[in-house]
Amino acid sequence: MARVMRIGRVELRVLDLEKSVDYYTNVIGLEETGRMGNSVYLKAWDEYDHHSVILTKSNSAGLAHLAFKVESLDDLAYYERKIEEFGCTTTRISKGTRLGEGEAVHFILPTGHHCELYHEIDLLGTAVGNLNPHPWPLGKKGIAPHRFDHCLLTGDDLKTVTRFFIEALNFRQSERITTVDGEELLGSFLFTTNKAHDLAFVKGPDAKLHHAAFHVDSLHDVFKAADLLSMYEVPFDVTPTRHGITRGETIYFFDPSGNRNEAFAGGYIAYPDMPTITWTEDKIGQGIFYHRRELSESFMKALT
Amino acid sequence: MARVMRIGRVELRVLDLEKSVDYYTNVIGLEETGRMGNSVYLKAWDEYDHHSVILTKSNSAGLAHLAFKVESLDDLAYYERKIEEFGCTTTRISKGTRLGEGEAVHFILPTGHHCELYHEIDLLGTAVGNLNPHPWPLGKKGIAPHRFDHCLLTGDDLKTVTRFFIEALNFRQSERITTVDGEELLGSFLFTTNKAHDLAFVKGPDAKLHHAAFHVDSLHDVFKAADLLSMYEVPFDVTPTRHGITRGETIYFFDPSGNRNEAFAGGYIAYPDMPTITWTEDKIGQGIFYHRRELSESFMKALT
Amino acid sequence: MARVMRIGRVELRVLDLEKSVDYYTNVIGLEETGRMGNSVYLKAWDEYDHHSVILTKSNSAGLAHLAFKVESLDDLAYYERKIEEFGCTTTRISKGTRLGEGEAVHFILPTGHHCELYHEIDLLGTAVGNLNPHPWPLGKKGIAPHRFDHCLLTGDDLKTVTRFFIEALNFRQSERITTVDGEELLGSFLFTTNKAHDLAFVKGPDAKLHHAAFHVDSLHDVFKAADLLSMYEVPFDVTPTRHGITRGETIYFFDPSGNRNEAFAGGYIAYPDMPTITWTEDKIGQGIFYHRRELSESFMKALT
Amino acid sequence: MARVMRIGRVELRVLDLEKSVDYYTNVIGLEETGRMGNSVYLKAWDEYDHHSVILTKSNSAGLAHLAFKVESLDDLAYYERKIEEFGCTTTRISKGTRLGEGEAVHFILPTGHHCELYHEIDLLGTAVGNLNPHPWPLGKKGIAPHRFDHCLLTGDDLKTVTRFFIEALNFRQSERITTVDGEELLGSFLFTTNKAHDLAFVKGPDAKLHHAAFHVDSLHDVFKAADLLSMYEVPFDVTPTRHGITRGETIYFFDPSGNRNEAFAGGYIAYPDMPTITWTEDKIGQGIFYHRRELSESFMKALT
Repeated sequence: MARVMRIGRVELRVLDLEKSVDYYTNVIGLEETGRMGNSVYLKAWDEYDHHSVILTKSNSAGLAHLAFKVESLDDLAYYERKIEEFGCTTTRISKGTRLGEGEAVHFILPTGHHCELYHEIDLLGTAVGNLNPHPWPLGKKGIAPHRFDHCLLTGDDLKTVTRFFIEALNFRQSERITTVDGEELLGSFLFTTNKAHDLAFVKGPDAKLHHAAFHVDSLHDVFKAADLLSMYEVPFDVTPTRHGITRGETIYFFDPSGNRNEAFAGGYIAYPDMPTITWTEDKIGQGIFYHRRELSESFMKALT
Repeated sequence: MARVMRIGRVELRVLDLEKSVDYYTNVIGLEETGRMGNSVYLKAWDEYDHHSVILTKSNSAGLAHLAFKVESLDDLAYYERKIEEFGCTTTRISKGTRLGEGEAVHFILPTGHHCELYHEIDLLGTAVGNLNPHPWPLGKKGIAPHRFDHCLLTGDDLKTVTRFFIEALNFRQSERITTVDGEELLGSFLFTTNKAHDLAFVKGPDAKLHHAAFHVDSLHDVFKAADLLSMYEVPFDVTPTRHGITRGETIYFFDPSGNRNEAFAGGYIAYPDMPTITWTEDKIGQGIFYHRRELSESFMKALT
Repeated sequence: MARVMRIGRVELRVLDLEKSVDYYTNVIGLEETGRMGNSVYLKAWDEYDHHSVILTKSNSAGLAHLAFKVESLDDLAYYERKIEEFGCTTTRISKGTRLGEGEAVHFILPTGHHCELYHEIDLLGTAVGNLNPHPWPLGKKGIAPHRFDHCLLTGDDLKTVTRFFIEALNFRQSERITTVDGEELLGSFLFTTNKAHDLAFVKGPDAKLHHAAFHVDSLHDVFKAADLLSMYEVPFDVTPTRHGITRGETIYFFDPSGNRNEAFAGGYIAYPDMPTITWTEDKIGQGIFYHRRELSESFMKALT
Repeated sequence: MARVMRIGRVELRVLDLEKSVDYYTNVIGLEETGRMGNSVYLKAWDEYDHHSVILTKSNSAGLAHLAFKVESLDDLAYYERKIEEFGCTTTRISKGTRLGEGEAVHFILPTGHHCELYHEIDLLGTAVGNLNPHPWPLGKKGIAPHRFDHCLLTGDDLKTVTRFFIEALNFRQSERITTVDGEELLGSFLFTTNKAHDLAFVKGPDAKLHHAAFHVDSLHDVFKAADLLSMYEVPFDVTPTRHGITRGETIYFFDPSGNRNEAFAGGYIAYPDMPTITWTEDKIGQGIFYHRRELSESFMKALT
């Protein structure tokens, strides 16, 4: 069976729906593609599918669910079986439960996060079209990322959740953070595409979101994003820097509900045969923030 | 079975071996990893495998062969069978025929190019290592690309070679160039990873090489590469510009034997479910050179 | 007396006024600040003065005049005297002849171009203001240069016009192009600020304009400008490259009347004590286009 | 008389001379051009004069002196007189007191810093020469700035030192930080070239150095510099960000003696007629660090 195609959507719980839509459309620069119930659906200009971000009104911030798209209904059934074999319970979510979506397979990760697999979703197309397209559209707003890129989650048992993604979902591990003696796993970076990570975990409370990341083209665009955040008075967590892990250029900041966002560029290309890169705990500062070389309190503690 | 993992190596025929090694190590900035017979083996600093470029002395320039790495020996056997089923003859090349390589499956593309699949190759590792690595190594030379990235080949029957890659090797087509009426296929861009192309074909004589491309990080590095070419008096074909197709930033130039090289950055992420982008022949200039919007004589005619 | 402060404005003759205004406001991204007679006045977002570009309807394209701002009325009188002493006739242009302008001193360069000095002009301020300003304004359009930057003119007697700017206006020469034997002056690059050039001349017919240039921040912005030109179908003369002379990154293109524009970034800082850099005619290609290393027909011939 | 041409050199007191030379040549990437007594002389690759940085062994770190180059000996005498008229005592330093230098005029700023004016200094030329030069030299090391760019000093009476530079040395003030009521001057940014600052002062103890800055080309090069600092384990003060004041892109870090260095890119072009930009104390965080929007303890306190 084919590898899981990509992390296709994230549903975020937000406190004030309209304020959140304003932020995700004007500051992040996503496009609203629909509304249903307490949820607003959004896509980036360079994504084909109906949505990649769902904002759902709630009384607490955080991750409602994240979902991976597979290449076919056969793959959906195949991975459903593999998840069950791993020992996780799956349930089918029926078509139409959410806007533009077909049937999905729901399960709960060993770290307590709600997760889905899906194949069917409406196709809207990118902002530049598929016939003699320009490289980017006029009239972009805000940070204007190409796509929703990845999430970082926290959990207690990183070995099991890593094993889950490798065994049940055919992911690979690009990088890991361990104690100096190599005994304990403190961070795990996983990929199913050729990106340096599609999903990552760091040691922490179960079922929590550390951040949802959006992809921009270059260091220049990370900096432009940082400028925009100051113009819009969005609170920063981390100003422009490079990650040791993935090598990407990055900024972190908070949406109006306190969910951490990242604008991310760069990162190496990951192939399934790459040996996993190891960061030891004594170098974790440099691994996370290559320049500052130490973790900040806020980066460690703020979770939703 | 898993998708073919990547385009892993290219063997180029060169006229003067030492002059070519000097160029590929000092101007391109690859590292020499071994010699055997009339061949010199090279890798980029960010590649793990023993080599990605082989230079072989010959009395004519051009492509000796290119090869794709698969994830396992099972995959090798699987794709070997698929190639045979498509109607291409395969032969096994024994381990040790080339330096650092295991057994490979050889076949000839419908366009006449020699091609191989392989799984086994010695692992040398990148220049930054896998334990608490820095993002890039000190002491890089020349253009210093991350990797060999893709080839563009010419051939007469692009429909068949496209069908071969899709049916036998499970590739997808990201973009295509057609006559305005859509009848004839003039260009075909194929991927097996998430890169906008891993291999491409344009209409032309069979068995010829248009260019071999190396990946650099950013527009800034494309420009630095262009500066270096002028310092080293390397002949340019195309000075810095953007492709409409793939959106990548690019320069083209010639190695001492006349083989065209490209330094390439950017390009969108391609997923298996992306609809193929179509360029019609009347917009081919913009598709190839987004700024100049017309093809040049040299870009069309110089082949090896 | 203080050095001449800067090249402050250029008046371009255009064939179709409305088409030109549309181009200079939407593609270049200047702001219209007023109209008077057959002229439209424009400024860049980062300029303080009322205008830096005047478009005047005419039946031929080209340079109507260019003008340099001096620091004070004393400087105006001082340089007026120096110009007369050099042997050029000056006349005073009265306040109100053009919108927002005070009195100016008019003279004709040894190369036949109309030129002025001035001190008084209305102050509008930049788009970001002078109290706790953001680094750039939201809502920029088009290329959005910081400023009108320099002009390149053609003329026959480059030695005399160079001597004029050095002796009468206290400019310095940053770079020059000479025949290989050093006898003839083929190009002369002059500065009064710390920019690598504020005005330049190449050998050619008298009284002609080669180009008017706008300054953007970086290579990234030169490339963005190049993309925009293709989106707006503006004809290119030269796609992105570097100059040997000044080291700047550049593109050239044509306004709707055929006046050549440049978007220019970079360039070294020039101090009055820098020795003049010499380019010999055999290296002129590399001096003008550092990558291509040869001049193009269109770059040599298209003048307005 | 002409404006003062530039800030031409800085003499830094360092604790361990060899360790400092190693740092300034390999990490910063300056070239050693001579030694005399307890001092080592250095220049950047793109500077013409014999040196711009002098490292002098001392038992405390800090600024020994900084010096401005004027265009002629007449200018030297003129500004000497103006300094005396302002009420500062000047003394002549004889030719040969330092390596490669002619006679200089010494005086002490109202803030207690040792300062000099000079005209004569040996000319070494840049690393690319003045005949058909390449835009940059092969074999650059470390951060490889174009030049020593500016200093930030601390002092108590910023109004007087500002008045000194404006009245005696013909500088202008590009930006200033004031209390919200506008009564007190907390920061003063001064220029004599077209750079956004050549010298700046912030409120603090007299005679102290906040930082000495080096100019690099672009945000990309600021980031490359930041990467290098982590590779060489140089302590950071401030990781990559933008200044509100000057708009420049920046990093701050410490030399082996604790003197703060900056790698700086960008910044607007300043003309003598620009209205001074005002930052009020309540926005000082954003003025200094446009992204973080607050000052750090270390940035405020670490002085040498």
